Amino acid sequence: MFGITPSARLRPSPFFEATVADGVSAFTTYNHMLMPTSFGHPEAEYWRLINGASMWDVAVERQVELVGPDAGRLAQILCSRDLSKCRVGQGKYVALCNHAGTLINDPILLKLADDRYWLSIADSNIWFWARAIAAERKLNVQVNEPDVSPLAVQGPKAEAVVASLCGDWVRDLKYFWFRETSIDGIPAAVARSGWSKQGGFEIYLMDGSQGTRLWNLVKEAGKPWDIGPGNPNFCERVESGLLSYGGDTDDRTNPFEVRMGKFVDLGVPDDVIGIDALRTIHRTGPTRHQLGVTLEGEEPTAFGFLWHDIRKDGRKVGDLTNCAWSYRLRKNIGFALISTACVAGDSVEVIKGGTMVPGVLCELPFL
Amino acid sequence: MFGITPSARLRPSPFFEATVADGVSAFTTYNHMLMPTSFGHPEAEYWRLINGASMWDVAVERQVELVGPDAGRLAQILCSRDLSKCRVGQGKYVALCNHAGTLINDPILLKLADDRYWLSIADSNIWFWARAIAAERKLNVQVNEPDVSPLAVQGPKAEAVVASLCGDWVRDLKYFWFRETSIDGIPAAVARSGWSKQGGFEIYLMDGSQGTRLWNLVKEAGKPWDIGPGNPNFCERVESGLLSYGGDTDDRTNPFEVRMGKFVDLGVPDDVIGIDALRTIHRTGPTRHQLGVTLEGEEPTAFGFLWHDIRKDGRKVGDLTNCAWSYRLRKNIGFALISTACVAGDSVEVIKGGTMVPGVLCELPFL
Repeated sequence: MFGITPSARLRPSPFFEATVADGVSAFTTYNHMLMPTSFGHPEAEYWRLINGASMWDVAVERQVELVGPDAGRLAQILCSRDLSKCRVGQGKYVALCNHAGTLINDPILLKLADDRYWLSIADSNIWFWARAIAAERKLNVQVNEPDVSPLAVQGPKAEAVVASLCGDWVRDLKYFWFRETSIDGIPAAVARSGWSKQGGFEIYLMDGSQGTRLWNLVKEAGKPWDIGPGNPNFCERVESGLLSYGGDTDDRTNPFEVRMGKFVDLGVPDDVIGIDALRTIHRTGPTRHQLGVTLEGEEPTAFGFLWHDIRKDGRKVGDLTNCAWSYRLRKNIGFALISTACVAGDSVEVIKGGTMVPGVLCELPFL
Repeated sequence: MFGITPSARLRPSPFFEATVADGVSAFTTYNHMLMPTSFGHPEAEYWRLINGASMWDVAVERQVELVGPDAGRLAQILCSRDLSKCRVGQGKYVALCNHAGTLINDPILLKLADDRYWLSIADSNIWFWARAIAAERKLNVQVNEPDVSPLAVQGPKAEAVVASLCGDWVRDLKYFWFRETSIDGIPAAVARSGWSKQGGFEIYLMDGSQGTRLWNLVKEAGKPWDIGPGNPNFCERVESGLLSYGGDTDDRTNPFEVRMGKFVDLGVPDDVIGIDALRTIHRTGPTRHQLGVTLEGEEPTAFGFLWHDIRKDGRKVGDLTNCAWSYRLRKNIGFALISTACVAGDSVEVIKGGTMVPGVLCELPFL
């Protein structure tokens, strides 16, 4: 592990000071911001998410706000998912594609009003993209970044924590729906969402000056449930089959390759970017798909920054795009972006530093 | 300083292994890659650049390749600088702006052929931008990322090093001009360029598998001049007045605010993105400009991730966008993005952690 040098190109989160006070020990960068990746106790942080309640600084999920008379039209042009029935207060997981049908982001879209949407983005610059399209198509819409910073509360006890903080109404929120509210005077939107499969909420802080205060309010409210600091958990997200845009995708990945086909509506209007290409890919079938791989061996293995070649019968058939030690399965597991000629049950070999690690393909998720 | 966690979202450079072998101790992230920021001896690395020869892994300066019949047309549409006289083998420092005239990158444009250009970019995603414009305007051009990774050799002895490696022809290269060549069989382009004012070259490696070998060839060639590892040097670039896109700019910065007006040609065709807005800004005059600030005090001061408010007569007038301890001036110096009502010679106050540090504005560069 190497140090990271402070730079004004990397914006700290409104929760930065609070996470430092709580012992953050490592970061990644994401959308030109720092995101905590460890508080020094990876296994304890994992089990806290699985069994209890964990709180995360995910301000790096920055918002691309579309506002104005053509906001809804631009949202649909950018998204290959049908938004015509999306209601105010509803969120949807969407695929953004370029004109070739290549995935360029997989945000949560939140409809705040008929003329106001947020795209809560993964790790790529969608402000430039949305502004280019809006300007070239002469749409009457502004593309901004509002002062909004998500804080996630995840785990089986997250609902109890957030209900004690915000009220029992949060128990009735449907998945990806949200409501604007105020928490001890701090403006926020509370959504049932989050980048784990353990359940929970994201609190969209709407006043960056209140980051430390909101963090400490959540921490205090969570005490009866032993809440503690965490972060989007690498092991859990691999076990749960959650996609990391840019980590599990490359510059030719389309949504069908990475299990996002169900979020592509081929009947959306023809002016939706990439829809023609997506119709063609759907008709001919993608050449790759995403499966799990379970590797042989009983010890955790570090795979580092790179993808690793996957071979079958001596020939490269795909890439291992991530690999984690599963605390529940006691195995090294990962995702394969691999030829559709390979299917669950096939034996493969992963090339790591010149040696071959045997593995078996499976469907995702693992758990 | 915090650790950085490996992630497939952050691509290592072809020179990564070589820089690890040479003792890299810290990184920043830039264009979703890691860039070395220290080899553990900051002051020695600085003086090596000022007095000798320093070699840098700047593979993060990734290339946006425009290739096809409309490549030249797209290049001009993206750039507010007149390219009509740009010749094959020539490079130019250019401002890319959005439709509002806001700076979105400040790359070096290299013309490799009439139908092939590279934009060697600063830290923002120009592939998405260029693809959006090309597709919306139905241009016959591909936007790719070629297998190209710059390695910089900088300092007063850089020319001797690169001439001993490539031949004396490099001594005749004009600033920003380049030539494609081969170094011990490794394909590369050699340009007179680099992000310092100490002179030097950038060797654009054109085969990522040869990173360690090229690094070691440069290291070996540089031994007579005591070459050593370094990186874009924070202190030197502040002394020299070099702009860091994303560090010294915000989401409303135009080229006139940051001393890039001389790279904007108001007479370029009307289809150049942002040119109408730039003409208006030029006519009415920008509201901010970029000056230097020399701070009181004889000790190095850390300013961290954030911009700092600059006040005059108790009122905020601008931001300190960087601050470095100058080894030559023995002062803390930085850049101000500040109201045009403030001019060189004015006394100001920089707010740091609640205290006020007195300073004086000056023209850039410092040295």
